[in-house]
Amino acid sequence: MFQYTATYTDLYQLSMAQVYFNKKQNQEATFDYYFRTLPFKGGYAVFAGLEELLTIIEELRFSKEDLAYLKTLDFEDEFLNYLKDFRFGGKITSMSEGEIVFGTAPILQVEANLIEAQIIETILLNTLNFQTLIATKASRIRQVAGDKTLLDFGLRRAQGPGGYYASRAAIIGGFDGSSNVITGRDFDIKISGTMAHAFVQSYDDELTAFRDFAENRPSNCVLLVDTYDTLKSGVPNAIKVAKEMESRGQKLLAIRLDSGDLAYLSKKSRAMLDDANLTYVQIAASNQLDEYVIQSLQNQKAPIDIYGVGTNLVIGKPDGALDGVYKLSYANGKPRIKISESISKVTLPYKKQVYRIKNSEGVLIGADAIAIADEYHVERMNHPVEPFKNLTIKSLNQEPMLKPVMENGKRINKIRTIQEIASYSKEKLSGLPEEYKRFDNPHIYKVGISDRLKQERDKLIAEHKR
Amino acid sequence: MFQYTATYTDLYQLSMAQVYFNKKQNQEATFDYYFRTLPFKGGYAVFAGLEELLTIIEELRFSKEDLAYLKTLDFEDEFLNYLKDFRFGGKITSMSEGEIVFGTAPILQVEANLIEAQIIETILLNTLNFQTLIATKASRIRQVAGDKTLLDFGLRRAQGPGGYYASRAAIIGGFDGSSNVITGRDFDIKISGTMAHAFVQSYDDELTAFRDFAENRPSNCVLLVDTYDTLKSGVPNAIKVAKEMESRGQKLLAIRLDSGDLAYLSKKSRAMLDDANLTYVQIAASNQLDEYVIQSLQNQKAPIDIYGVGTNLVIGKPDGALDGVYKLSYANGKPRIKISESISKVTLPYKKQVYRIKNSEGVLIGADAIAIADEYHVERMNHPVEPFKNLTIKSLNQEPMLKPVMENGKRINKIRTIQEIASYSKEKLSGLPEEYKRFDNPHIYKVGISDRLKQERDKLIAEHKR
Repeated sequence: MFQYTATYTDLYQLSMAQVYFNKKQNQEATFDYYFRTLPFKGGYAVFAGLEELLTIIEELRFSKEDLAYLKTLDFEDEFLNYLKDFRFGGKITSMSEGEIVFGTAPILQVEANLIEAQIIETILLNTLNFQTLIATKASRIRQVAGDKTLLDFGLRRAQGPGGYYASRAAIIGGFDGSSNVITGRDFDIKISGTMAHAFVQSYDDELTAFRDFAENRPSNCVLLVDTYDTLKSGVPNAIKVAKEMESRGQKLLAIRLDSGDLAYLSKKSRAMLDDANLTYVQIAASNQLDEYVIQSLQNQKAPIDIYGVGTNLVIGKPDGALDGVYKLSYANGKPRIKISESISKVTLPYKKQVYRIKNSEGVLIGADAIAIADEYHVERMNHPVEPFKNLTIKSLNQEPMLKPVMENGKRINKIRTIQEIASYSKEKLSGLPEEYKRFDNPHIYKVGISDRLKQERDKLIAEHKR
Repeated sequence: MFQYTATYTDLYQLSMAQVYFNKKQNQEATFDYYFRTLPFKGGYAVFAGLEELLTIIEELRFSKEDLAYLKTLDFEDEFLNYLKDFRFGGKITSMSEGEIVFGTAPILQVEANLIEAQIIETILLNTLNFQTLIATKASRIRQVAGDKTLLDFGLRRAQGPGGYYASRAAIIGGFDGSSNVITGRDFDIKISGTMAHAFVQSYDDELTAFRDFAENRPSNCVLLVDTYDTLKSGVPNAIKVAKEMESRGQKLLAIRLDSGDLAYLSKKSRAMLDDANLTYVQIAASNQLDEYVIQSLQNQKAPIDIYGVGTNLVIGKPDGALDGVYKLSYANGKPRIKISESISKVTLPYKKQVYRIKNSEGVLIGADAIAIADEYHVERMNHPVEPFKNLTIKSLNQEPMLKPVMENGKRINKIRTIQEIASYSKEKLSGLPEEYKRFDNPHIYKVGISDRLKQERDKLIAEHKR
């Protein structure tokens, strides 16, 4: 069964590390983490996974089993001896977890010797790509759900143990809770759950099933009403049990619809509950929900109070992955570049800083400027690809976004709870104008490079072309 | 950081279990695992995850931290005390891991008391759904790749720790190896890897980078040739280094292309290598590959020997999830059913057996029959939904597919290695006619129900409609 260890990586990291160990120990390098394309054809993404990544990196070790296995793969004994005591001892600067991000600009930078920087690459990408994807999906769903309760129900369709981090990222993106019990234990996530159809089926009749459940789980009691017939059997039986609960001084929290036309059934059920003076009983709905289905239900004024979202959330449908990459930008005292036939895939050299541009009132103007780290202020930002597009930002407020989060392999700040991260993210998102949040052709947030970075990049391209 | 424990489940399992504990302890139940729709619009799926699931179930416990946390969620002390000593003690019958499966028919059945059967539900779905999806995707890629080498490179785009099982499932579906080191350690998977662009970039020139790599990693040496310019720089430098290796009695294994037009570049590179008498140097290719891109490369006769497949494999693109479900079919001595407005979503009652129908020579005729467990032989199978479609199979060979794999919570057989599972799957797939394997409108494999099962189902539906 899976447990984190330093061999949860691609072999090439260790192959390269072996060569670095023999030939260029202690050469310092800088790597950028960024993605090229915003997920879901959206206008923004929510950066997630950082705090867990720092924990994973702090504790990353090669176990005895790892080393015994690596010995079978032609690694040299001296190198294996080095791995025995491996600790990541580098520096990481990063945007905060929960930050709203836009692609192209580095979200995180690693400064470490080449060996250590390569050994953490895979686990870094594996952690940040997935959680950023899911937090972004969750945020989109939150955009349309208003103040309705959003619950993650996706564990059964997640990638095995990947569901642990799906639930975490969902909260960062704006979900209220999860069905995934362990994440309540580990992240203090509010855990919710109702009953399966099997519970009702295991009884000879639905009413007895509801009664037993209400008697034994009176707090947070939610009854699933669609096992046999929602309106003819499920809702009437739930109403009976709600009345019995009232006579015991208890309250039925909600009924849950899990199939059929959710708009129609929620309206009919609401009317039946209200007619029985059960206006306080909420309606929960689930079944293949995503941001578009919820938007449609909201537009139809379906009286649904709680949405349970499963598969489409935890697999980040339809994208399924974020294309985040980890690229070398500086090594052994020199800027480094990767050339590509497509200019948009050429990497940006040098250790860098990213500035979020705001007006004098601190309002976002919709632009991030990438500069070489020692520039401190950017006069003009240029489109990274198109030659004649630029924007003068000299007189504008420029907030540096990359801040140290790890030094000498140790986390600098206290671990932020996911509740802190989620409210940070919510606040940042509230500052982003609506046109960046819409689903269809969202406004494009500008990400550009400083004059100096552009010159240096183009100089390096020219050198390599010779 | 994630570690398996029994709270890696949906809360409702524990809520239901609390009620069962109070009201109906020791009631025996049967649950079916099956999926409704074949993934990828394909004609078959490859069942995967079973052996890992059995290990997970055997070791499933509530830890001290789990119990302390559950105490905060309104569970009763007596029930928590029961969970402290929880062990799954039930029986599991299943198709073999690696089996070719077709939906609707149970792939696996759990017989246990209601509490235990519910407590394993989520982890069962979480394990089998994902691995079956990925094994099926891998199998589709193998269909088009012929005898080319297929490597899984997807770890960086997987769902955090989910990548561990993606690599495992890829081998079951027909891949030759993975970059994911830990899976070599744990599953004896052949591990492969080359170098990243960063390796080449970290040097002032590509040739020195290649030389250092070849000197220090001469066995399985693969050089990545597209960091600056594939045909002008990468391949010529690789040829120089290959010749230097020859002079040391070593052989360059391959070059790797990771961008650009792979058909064009592989043909040009092949010609350059051949002109240099390096006909033994293979060509590896990667970059957003899937079964369709590989099929196109194969059709163009691209001289690629090794395909590295990443994102599209490990996320099971475009589906991202398999819709496998776990449905109650028998409890407390009675058959159980879930009604739905759509007849295709009505569940099948009773403990069952699935028969794979073959002709007298043992050749598949393209039909599975689902029967009540004590039927032993099926005279006629009926379409599960359409009333007038049936098939007489009385005189045909009927192979029972569900076999005991766990009794009293203990695995019955030795754990099969994934190499054993992969060759079992390959053999079974070779018996499936080609028309079920094609991508476009594959032939539909028939799955039907026996006369008796149909009668019993319809009787239960009628009873519930009253």
